[in-house]
Amino acid sequence: MTDLLWPGDDRAGDVFTDAAVLAAMVRAEAAWLTALVAHGVAEPAAADDLDGLIGPDDVPLVAAGSEAGGNPLIPLLTLLRERLKARNPAAASWLHKGLTSQDVIDTGLVLCLRDAAGQIQSQIKVQTDLLVRLAEEHRDTLMPGRTLTQYAVPISFGLKAVTWLNGILDARDRLALAAALPVQIGGAAGSLAAPVALTGSPITVRGLIETAADTLGLPVRDPWHTARAPLTGIADALVTCTDAWGRLANDVLVGARPEVHELSEGAVAGRGGSSAMPNKQNPVLSILIRRAALAGPMLAATMHTAAAAAVDERPDGGWHIEWATLRTLARRTVTAGSQTAELLSGLQVEKAWMTANLASARPGIDAEQRSITSGTADDRYLGATTEIIDAAVARARAPHP
Amino acid sequence: MTDLLWPGDDRAGDVFTDAAVLAAMVRAEAAWLTALVAHGVAEPAAADDLDGLIGPDDVPLVAAGSEAGGNPLIPLLTLLRERLKARNPAAASWLHKGLTSQDVIDTGLVLCLRDAAGQIQSQIKVQTDLLVRLAEEHRDTLMPGRTLTQYAVPISFGLKAVTWLNGILDARDRLALAAALPVQIGGAAGSLAAPVALTGSPITVRGLIETAADTLGLPVRDPWHTARAPLTGIADALVTCTDAWGRLANDVLVGARPEVHELSEGAVAGRGGSSAMPNKQNPVLSILIRRAALAGPMLAATMHTAAAAAVDERPDGGWHIEWATLRTLARRTVTAGSQTAELLSGLQVEKAWMTANLASARPGIDAEQRSITSGTADDRYLGATTEIIDAAVARARAPHP
Amino acid sequence: MTDLLWPGDDRAGDVFTDAAVLAAMVRAEAAWLTALVAHGVAEPAAADDLDGLIGPDDVPLVAAGSEAGGNPLIPLLTLLRERLKARNPAAASWLHKGLTSQDVIDTGLVLCLRDAAGQIQSQIKVQTDLLVRLAEEHRDTLMPGRTLTQYAVPISFGLKAVTWLNGILDARDRLALAAALPVQIGGAAGSLAAPVALTGSPITVRGLIETAADTLGLPVRDPWHTARAPLTGIADALVTCTDAWGRLANDVLVGARPEVHELSEGAVAGRGGSSAMPNKQNPVLSILIRRAALAGPMLAATMHTAAAAAVDERPDGGWHIEWATLRTLARRTVTAGSQTAELLSGLQVEKAWMTANLASARPGIDAEQRSITSGTADDRYLGATTEIIDAAVARARAPHP
Amino acid sequence: MTDLLWPGDDRAGDVFTDAAVLAAMVRAEAAWLTALVAHGVAEPAAADDLDGLIGPDDVPLVAAGSEAGGNPLIPLLTLLRERLKARNPAAASWLHKGLTSQDVIDTGLVLCLRDAAGQIQSQIKVQTDLLVRLAEEHRDTLMPGRTLTQYAVPISFGLKAVTWLNGILDARDRLALAAALPVQIGGAAGSLAAPVALTGSPITVRGLIETAADTLGLPVRDPWHTARAPLTGIADALVTCTDAWGRLANDVLVGARPEVHELSEGAVAGRGGSSAMPNKQNPVLSILIRRAALAGPMLAATMHTAAAAAVDERPDGGWHIEWATLRTLARRTVTAGSQTAELLSGLQVEKAWMTANLASARPGIDAEQRSITSGTADDRYLGATTEIIDAAVARARAPHP
Repeated sequence: MTDLLWPGDDRAGDVFTDAAVLAAMVRAEAAWLTALVAHGVAEPAAADDLDGLIGPDDVPLVAAGSEAGGNPLIPLLTLLRERLKARNPAAASWLHKGLTSQDVIDTGLVLCLRDAAGQIQSQIKVQTDLLVRLAEEHRDTLMPGRTLTQYAVPISFGLKAVTWLNGILDARDRLALAAALPVQIGGAAGSLAAPVALTGSPITVRGLIETAADTLGLPVRDPWHTARAPLTGIADALVTCTDAWGRLANDVLVGARPEVHELSEGAVAGRGGSSAMPNKQNPVLSILIRRAALAGPMLAATMHTAAAAAVDERPDGGWHIEWATLRTLARRTVTAGSQTAELLSGLQVEKAWMTANLASARPGIDAEQRSITSGTADDRYLGATTEIIDAAVARARAPHP
Repeated sequence: MTDLLWPGDDRAGDVFTDAAVLAAMVRAEAAWLTALVAHGVAEPAAADDLDGLIGPDDVPLVAAGSEAGGNPLIPLLTLLRERLKARNPAAASWLHKGLTSQDVIDTGLVLCLRDAAGQIQSQIKVQTDLLVRLAEEHRDTLMPGRTLTQYAVPISFGLKAVTWLNGILDARDRLALAAALPVQIGGAAGSLAAPVALTGSPITVRGLIETAADTLGLPVRDPWHTARAPLTGIADALVTCTDAWGRLANDVLVGARPEVHELSEGAVAGRGGSSAMPNKQNPVLSILIRRAALAGPMLAATMHTAAAAAVDERPDGGWHIEWATLRTLARRTVTAGSQTAELLSGLQVEKAWMTANLASARPGIDAEQRSITSGTADDRYLGATTEIIDAAVARARAPHP
Repeated sequence: MTDLLWPGDDRAGDVFTDAAVLAAMVRAEAAWLTALVAHGVAEPAAADDLDGLIGPDDVPLVAAGSEAGGNPLIPLLTLLRERLKARNPAAASWLHKGLTSQDVIDTGLVLCLRDAAGQIQSQIKVQTDLLVRLAEEHRDTLMPGRTLTQYAVPISFGLKAVTWLNGILDARDRLALAAALPVQIGGAAGSLAAPVALTGSPITVRGLIETAADTLGLPVRDPWHTARAPLTGIADALVTCTDAWGRLANDVLVGARPEVHELSEGAVAGRGGSSAMPNKQNPVLSILIRRAALAGPMLAATMHTAAAAAVDERPDGGWHIEWATLRTLARRTVTAGSQTAELLSGLQVEKAWMTANLASARPGIDAEQRSITSGTADDRYLGATTEIIDAAVARARAPHP
Repeated sequence: MTDLLWPGDDRAGDVFTDAAVLAAMVRAEAAWLTALVAHGVAEPAAADDLDGLIGPDDVPLVAAGSEAGGNPLIPLLTLLRERLKARNPAAASWLHKGLTSQDVIDTGLVLCLRDAAGQIQSQIKVQTDLLVRLAEEHRDTLMPGRTLTQYAVPISFGLKAVTWLNGILDARDRLALAAALPVQIGGAAGSLAAPVALTGSPITVRGLIETAADTLGLPVRDPWHTARAPLTGIADALVTCTDAWGRLANDVLVGARPEVHELSEGAVAGRGGSSAMPNKQNPVLSILIRRAALAGPMLAATMHTAAAAAVDERPDGGWHIEWATLRTLARRTVTAGSQTAELLSGLQVEKAWMTANLASARPGIDAEQRSITSGTADDRYLGATTEIIDAAVARARAPHP
């Protein structure tokens, strides 16, 4: 999977590729089959992990077949059943029994989202460690504070770093809650009618669901085919991440302007060049991070539009816009998270320019201080910066979900 | 405040009106002044609750003056200071000391949002009580389940009711977390420089903030001028509410179609009429609820766009789009919440039509059942409906934040 | 009408206020009544211009009554009919005959939009005249060109001015096409059934529509109750305006940064101040213009969402979200257009800083030139700037719709 | 290129695939090289059509290299130059001379958009021909008109068909204007500095641009690197298409509900099935068309956000979000356009059900008629339906851009 039009997309690796989605749907089917056997609903011979039946090469065939039924599970199931039949006819006859397309697709999406969320959580750990270091190193690195583009009062770069940090920690905490996405198993209309008919007992079905969920490492939840808050929640959390990173990138982009010169991206051979201007050293990572932040909100809005369009026991279009939207959002967020971690690890803090800019901002930038202290001004107009930094560092290090 | 173009807006009453915003900003200033006096920073004579100084009649003047500084706090402060001077010169000289515009505006927004959230939480309580009753009453009221607009398998209306209920409970839980919005006190650049200069001590300033926050009943948090997750969080939660209500309204709108006839809004004298067609009885509440759900996602997207546009120590436009967006979102959500509660309280469930529709859906609608049960079909193809209803009812009744 | 949370909103004056909307709906009713009399469908005694019957004081009553039928026309009509009855019973009996609510509301919206568009077109004339002057004055005012935040090649400020100008001319041309919004007269289901029944003839009805449209100065069009491209077109055009102005404001905000210092807003007594920092001179107009540009796209998206939600012969919510959205979009665009005109009229171009910044950008900024000219570089690396400026100026001055 | 998560995406074929984008950028480079030779700026030996140098297999390498410079042109150029050098060193040395990355990328996007627009225009021709036929065939096919989900007055299905038709013709006309996207040639900062330095003359450069534009079949326009109305215009037009198709699909989805039964998608073997319910015949095309309409508005909003984020002589992120957004929008629109043409070609109009529904809607549905005609009602309450149909048919057939 390549995306020529979203430079850096390869950072997202296999997250949510067509092949990964296929594999995730197969895992969902396998977990259910496993549960059927484990609970004695299906005979022992039907046990099959479905491994090796479907691979990336099957993507074109499944994709081509997905329009007829309006979703990719139907052609996948046909293919899977056909191949499984040759290897394990018992398994083939039990495959998907009691499930509906949406069960498998939703659970597949959830698995892909969990992978994305896991990667983002690791990136956030790296980012927050780097920000803690920057904040501590630059507790007293004075620079001009700016509001509404103009000089306001002096701050330290450490304070700025913890402002970024707090935004990322907010995103971390929101993501932690949202990433606990549940399994989807509900049958055609969310009543579990088919599995209960199959097993004769809601209690057995509850057991089946728990086993399948355990196999996949997902929480159990009653059917949520048309109650889509789990998916709007993860979308909102992902956008909260790009909000926080974009906010940080905005500051780097201002700081990297040659007239300001307070921040720059670490030099990397071959990065930041131009096709015609040999002089250029563009803050490419920040630009690409900012890009994700600019585009993200509309993707989360699309997920809410989907949720609000739910109707009947499965919606007529609202469900269908979620899939590609989640993929795009997940890959872009993983990409931006990786770029942000790298940006922070190479960030150059130009103390001399900060000092010089602050000097040239004087005496205007001391006006508030003078208005409070009867006209005297000194460099230590940093207020509770130390305490704010300490609290943010402690927050970053404290146990969290 | 009237809004001719959002029928039902009067249900939102005083929530976030211009007058309410003014009053909330005055409360924020008063809480800070109280804190200054309580901690001995200001002399006892400076104590003043600021009551009676500013009222709804001041809105035009403050509004007219708000462009010059780019925000409404500056002209409000001028007016407040001038009037306070006449009544309590000591208070006038201490007013706003150590704060920045954004502290007061953000805290004012938070107070207005808390009011809105409180009303919505009460509405949700009413809604969920009504849905619990509907679910229990209609556990066994059979009707056709529909997916992708077509008959799928039979369900009970009680199951549909708990699908709605679970969506609303998701919204309830998300709102509970998001509604705990913090006070904003950070000074010009979020370092608390001015209050520390004023008092000589970060510890004292911490005390001041705690006192002010306590006065307002808000949690304390370190400055979040450019880390806007608290506001995107509440916006996302409000849209999660309208998603859930819109999803419910969609079902009522399908059910109210004369050919389906399974659901109708309770008859209310004078409601649902037409300007030219005496025959009409339109499902007005559902239409207006659906309206809020259609428009909501773009408002939350605007809040994320704002958050992602944060830069420097106060942004150059990103901050400014939040205010009106939050007001619109809050009032529309309160309005839709009230309409949803009323819709549910009057909802007519037409059992006879459900029965008739199910009958006419047969035998097709029994096809899945027959494919599992070797060809027999009976009415009890409801799977775990009882258990799903019980769980949702328990969830509605369980303690929650 | 005040909007404390959108500073500068008073610049939009009466555009789309509740009172203006009421008046516009009354004008639509009056135009139809006039047509009925003019074509002899109604008796001469039924002639009535409806003047003086409804005023701003009626807003609260109409607003309060608008939820019952889901739109403001129904209570307005009740009030209008009642008052008219006292003055002209014949007119009262013919009022609204043959129309449907949507006819009057859509036509009322169109009238309000036309007013807004007219104001914006006047603002654009002022803006483009000012930009022509700036472009000509600064043809040779050298400054650094910047791409991706970094120095690229030298440009002249005149070139930048015509880049802004071309964007605004694009918006002007798009608005000219979109502003020709048609009358809406179609009857209950868009078939003109009622007026034809009334008059016995589609030809007479065509005449009625033409007369009504002429009275209002609007083009005729067959019913467009559920074909909403006229409204998405105007929304797109309005956002194209704020895009162009926001793009300009972004440049002013960069230029106004103290380290860059190339541009500043004209000093206006009392503008740009801060509640706590006496030193501040914030570029308030640019910030507020940028605000409109950040928020605009989601409003046009809401209009497209409405258009795409159309169903049946009148939609169940899709129609209802258009009204408030159009008002917000129209008022914000008028406000931003006025601010942009004022910004341009006062814009300070700091030549000395441009010169100094360019000097400090050397020799790097000459690298492209050296790579083409075998190592020599001079100030005249302005390419076709003269021709580009001349063409834009000619475009601004040429006749256009 | 496959997209498992957007069923039907293969209908868009090669439109805007990574390979198509690469090829389009190569065409843009070739057109410029051709112009350089044609005008004698480059020596005749430098003539090269660049054919056969770059192919789909190069996508991964170019994609992997695109992050370093923030865009795909830079690595493409490296590859192209290297391969060209071996075949035509003179051409290699002239390649891209005078251009900037954005010139080639924007022109490449324009070429891909033109391809998409051309396909959509052909689809619209098919759609409007089919709708003309449906309208004429069903001029007098009576059915219930519905407003706000309820029976309103009788209409004919022909009237409904021309309502759809008029929406599509609006989209057609808007697309015709927007599809005339211009070439982008401006050099590093939009001043054409490099090509003028290269040739010594703005007049020669104008000739170069005209030749290059002619080669590509594109209109000439002065540089629009940061004046993005051409791209927001095409995005708005594409969404206007999906609005119109979605509106049509909404009606089919209502009509296809089993209780309404007035419309159905043509039966196609294997289409509309379910993974578990053998009874299902889902209106898949309508669902997938509606999907595109639900998601489209946010994509156009992203393009406006990009336009409004333009700053300096090339923006720091605003430009970068356009590329993938345009691809997604273009492919989804082409897909939906193809599905709509197919939907219309197979659409089943169930006259008997329309008749039956209308009968059961009586007498209520005749209430408006009775209120006008003193109590009598007949079937010919169709108003100006004939005239409206005739006008729409004439509009469809009239010459247009």
